Amino acid sequence: MASRPTVQSLAKDLGVSRQTISNAINRPEVVAPDTLERVLKHIHESGYVPSRAARQLKEDRSRQIAIRLLPTFDGINGHILDQFIHDLAEILRTRGYRLSVFSAKDTKDEIKQYETMYAAREIDGVILAATVPNDPRIDSLLKLKAPFVTFGRPWSSSHDPEPSSFSWVDVDGAAGTEAVVRHLASKGHSKIAYISWPISSGVGRDRYLGWMNGMQSLGLETDGLLRECTDSAEEGAKQAKTLVQEGATAIVCASDSLAMGALAVTDNELTVVGFDDTPVARALGMNSVAQPIHEVAEKTVETLFARLGGDETPHRILLTPEPMFRNELTHN
Amino acid sequence: MASRPTVQSLAKDLGVSRQTISNAINRPEVVAPDTLERVLKHIHESGYVPSRAARQLKEDRSRQIAIRLLPTFDGINGHILDQFIHDLAEILRTRGYRLSVFSAKDTKDEIKQYETMYAAREIDGVILAATVPNDPRIDSLLKLKAPFVTFGRPWSSSHDPEPSSFSWVDVDGAAGTEAVVRHLASKGHSKIAYISWPISSGVGRDRYLGWMNGMQSLGLETDGLLRECTDSAEEGAKQAKTLVQEGATAIVCASDSLAMGALAVTDNELTVVGFDDTPVARALGMNSVAQPIHEVAEKTVETLFARLGGDETPHRILLTPEPMFRNELTHN
Repeated sequence: MASRPTVQSLAKDLGVSRQTISNAINRPEVVAPDTLERVLKHIHESGYVPSRAARQLKEDRSRQIAIRLLPTFDGINGHILDQFIHDLAEILRTRGYRLSVFSAKDTKDEIKQYETMYAAREIDGVILAATVPNDPRIDSLLKLKAPFVTFGRPWSSSHDPEPSSFSWVDVDGAAGTEAVVRHLASKGHSKIAYISWPISSGVGRDRYLGWMNGMQSLGLETDGLLRECTDSAEEGAKQAKTLVQEGATAIVCASDSLAMGALAVTDNELTVVGFDDTPVARALGMNSVAQPIHEVAEKTVETLFARLGGDETPHRILLTPEPMFRNELTHN
Repeated sequence: MASRPTVQSLAKDLGVSRQTISNAINRPEVVAPDTLERVLKHIHESGYVPSRAARQLKEDRSRQIAIRLLPTFDGINGHILDQFIHDLAEILRTRGYRLSVFSAKDTKDEIKQYETMYAAREIDGVILAATVPNDPRIDSLLKLKAPFVTFGRPWSSSHDPEPSSFSWVDVDGAAGTEAVVRHLASKGHSKIAYISWPISSGVGRDRYLGWMNGMQSLGLETDGLLRECTDSAEEGAKQAKTLVQEGATAIVCASDSLAMGALAVTDNELTVVGFDDTPVARALGMNSVAQPIHEVAEKTVETLFARLGGDETPHRILLTPEPMFRNELTHN
């Protein structure tokens, strides 16, 4: 790194003290005019840029925001987070901030890293994704008094009158599955089945409730049309087979992985709808529900900057996803 | 950020000067014993961590490595880069470094950001992905004397006896497509077609050459079996139709997007092989060629750290991809 000019190398080049260089930059009035001219000319020609670390020290902020990269699983559902990170980096840049990504072994390790990074003033704030019920990361960040915003609701308090004490941005999964049910009903479907993630999970329960509310408010029977399983194409295929036997004409799924499995065993004779509008769904021309990720990223950054600017009010922003129908059969 | 103790807040808490705090940490011998004990006890209890910016200034390094996030296209081919970034973050962490991701409008903007970040000693080095022939980013980084390693060969000099003047790590695409041809021939195929990316592109030419070398060294006819097109499922489908008419029994493709299109029109009557083993390929049980991304990330970091440690030798590391056969028809 010898090629980058520093106060030291400039001083050496010019045969003056480091103090003279510093004075020329910060207190030019104390430097003799001819020295000043010579020093400033050389600084300009050298391409010297004051160190970001020096600015950080002076300002007591790093202009860096941390986000944890999750390990990749099947690369299908992980895509949402990758896109979120792309969008965050782009939006933070317009505010003169950088995104520092890091990996962690587990949640405990993740929390430890926030503590270390925040204490060393290496980061000014944190963006938490993939929140879970009673998320221990939230308690830790509140305790640290580190500014943060979550992409994901505080599921533990979703049935709780107590509003959250921190800011979050999320997508209204229930609104998405309910809109899908209403659309399918308008096309003549009445036996609309649902393959759910475990309903004990925050996101799983949210998307399930949308289906249930839609069916009930339309006066449609739900008996025998609900399946609950973990997230994989294999499970989707297995559950879809039993729903075909049940007489379902459309299957709504909590994810594109489940929908892909369901599609494979229903031979295009049923309408299948996934969730998240992942690249796989788009490539296969599948029906799905798209999350407005760019808007999530914008609102997340906006909310985080309000907090960095001293606004302690918890903001809660719920965005609406959009059903994408590409391949559907009318049923009547 | 008032909650994080600083030298200033510690001094205020204790009613001593900032110099005393600094001395207690850096030159304890000059502090009166009772003051020293009181100061150190309070520092310990406060959870004070020296600022990373201060350490950066002292060490003249930031322990940050930059990589540009590319805009997402179809989310299929972009997956390789996302996985690379995950792996880099994980490996850099074991060396006490962070990965700083940023977005750029275009190549010119990307170069400008390297200049700014490097001059401000905000980053110690750069990892360049997705290199192109005569990549202007390489010239700029060489001129800046910024340590960098590319994931991708310097395509401009691949037919050139002059070895590159910088370090790179890459995957031998030609070895991948040649291995696929040899495998297919061993299963009885002789009319093995190839759907190529534009052969003018570095990666396109590389993967194409493997197919051509494989066919020629096995004495197989290639006439009428080559198609060249841009990367999309639509193009893959279009080209595959004409290859079926040509009597091809197997189609090797430069990407999974092309292979997905080819699969859709060949009704499982031909063996189709993609490239990159993306999540879509795995989800669909497609044949593909897997790049050893974790090993690429390891070698990239290793090579970059050699350079950061003062090793100016250009290292050139070419890794071999692995064909994954999941769904093939024997032909004889």
